[in-house]
Amino acid sequence: MNKELISNTFKDIQDSICESISSMTSQEFVEDLWNYDKGIGGGRTRIISNGEIEKGGVNFSSLSGAMSDKISSKMAGEGREFYATGVSLVLHPKNPFVPSIHMNIRYIERNKKKWFGGGIDLTPYYVNKNEIIHYHQQIKNICDKHENMNYFDFKNKCDEYFFIKHRKETRGVGGIFFDYLDINLSKVFKFVKDIGYGFTDIFSPLYLNNYKKEIKQNHRDFQLYRRGRYVEFNLVYDRGTLFGLETDGRIESILMSLPPSCNWIYDWKPEKGSDEQDLYNYLKPINWIDSE
Amino acid sequence: MNKELISNTFKDIQDSICESISSMTSQEFVEDLWNYDKGIGGGRTRIISNGEIEKGGVNFSSLSGAMSDKISSKMAGEGREFYATGVSLVLHPKNPFVPSIHMNIRYIERNKKKWFGGGIDLTPYYVNKNEIIHYHQQIKNICDKHENMNYFDFKNKCDEYFFIKHRKETRGVGGIFFDYLDINLSKVFKFVKDIGYGFTDIFSPLYLNNYKKEIKQNHRDFQLYRRGRYVEFNLVYDRGTLFGLETDGRIESILMSLPPSCNWIYDWKPEKGSDEQDLYNYLKPINWIDSE
Repeated sequence: MNKELISNTFKDIQDSICESISSMTSQEFVEDLWNYDKGIGGGRTRIISNGEIEKGGVNFSSLSGAMSDKISSKMAGEGREFYATGVSLVLHPKNPFVPSIHMNIRYIERNKKKWFGGGIDLTPYYVNKNEIIHYHQQIKNICDKHENMNYFDFKNKCDEYFFIKHRKETRGVGGIFFDYLDINLSKVFKFVKDIGYGFTDIFSPLYLNNYKKEIKQNHRDFQLYRRGRYVEFNLVYDRGTLFGLETDGRIESILMSLPPSCNWIYDWKPEKGSDEQDLYNYLKPINWIDSE
Repeated sequence: MNKELISNTFKDIQDSICESISSMTSQEFVEDLWNYDKGIGGGRTRIISNGEIEKGGVNFSSLSGAMSDKISSKMAGEGREFYATGVSLVLHPKNPFVPSIHMNIRYIERNKKKWFGGGIDLTPYYVNKNEIIHYHQQIKNICDKHENMNYFDFKNKCDEYFFIKHRKETRGVGGIFFDYLDINLSKVFKFVKDIGYGFTDIFSPLYLNNYKKEIKQNHRDFQLYRRGRYVEFNLVYDRGTLFGLETDGRIESILMSLPPSCNWIYDWKPEKGSDEQDLYNYLKPINWIDSE
């Protein structure tokens, strides 16, 4: 694979996602360009805040260099030379009826080993079942267009990965997660591109159908409370976050995934029969596609 | 050592701390009694919230049983039988001029090995140097009353322990931290009691001198922002928290240490010369005692 082509495509995916989010929300991204101080390359961190997207980031990076001992021991493959490029995004909308969403696509070379990884997953506060089914269906449609990209395998990996063990809850309603896709890279690249360029179509209905919904205090309180779970997952379990923190990555880019504000309330429980309690019915692996 | 005496003393320390905090703040604690479902014993979780102490907990527990493989591999000593009792507290005051404070004292038996551990540390948002010096001096005075309880050793351990590696900042201005004190247990017990019963005198001036101070939006914003660091430390590094999460402890008691609400703002930096920037001068190991 031509890594410059991949990297340039990822940049273009970042541009296209930022443009569509900007036009949808009338918010501008603020860009931070940064250089990788331990090797070659750098990144474009783009942050959006204080609007219908209360906080979000759409980041691109392309880095190469020699791994430290620490990074080397934590990564698949052998040898010190590496190249990594990717797009990573997290959006925390202001309206609690719009789910938070996360997407990541990445291409990594280590010595002679080369692979793609990534995923997309959704964290609603209030579940509209039809919307979640549609969301999963859209992702499945992308998988189905590509040989060997099995939606159900990737969906199961996502449920496994985004699990908050100490709460016995998934972080949200899942999506897909894949890693170490190293066979037939040019075909995998096509799949990864479809995920990246497909993001806007996946997110926009979730946003447009909900961002104007009327909000009461209990909705906002529940959103702030549930965002605490997002923090718990990212700081305790998320491999990318912990990898970044341990290997002295660019902290502000790594932690841009954390929500703008959140609450922890001792032993809080939703009222029986409330919309808030309803969420807990969905924080487990569910076959959304066949649930209609 | 008579473990019932220790446990009853710890209970009494919990009572005395709760009483003094209640009378100082006019807030009542809410008590949750719980049983240890994997062995014998349980705890008294006491929570205070929605007042001058925005959120806090003063917890007692006394547990015995047989360790799981997981716990066994993570703890000093050998054998499965264990006994553990302790008091653990965290207070997150509402007024940003009152520091957050944490204290813990514990006694553990594993097979024939028996030891005390604990510590006290302080996380201010705005540093009043004289207050911090006085705070350290009070702790040193307690250490100095006891043979072999070297304030400077314990202070260095505290600075090492409460370090947020990825931020290159200490969590606050330190205090003391000690563990595996297993020689001459009855003398160590006296020291640990002095820390426990001494807590109120250590905290009350920090509270009483500051809780009525006038607050502007920037003070509150900075407090919410800095509380994010507290979360980062507790979820990424704190051994007690991670041990609890990994070993299926009582989640709500473990995570009561997290602040009631907090913010993450991308790449936020304090204004040059501001009171907010001043804090960063103190987030490193400082010999407060000799700094006058």
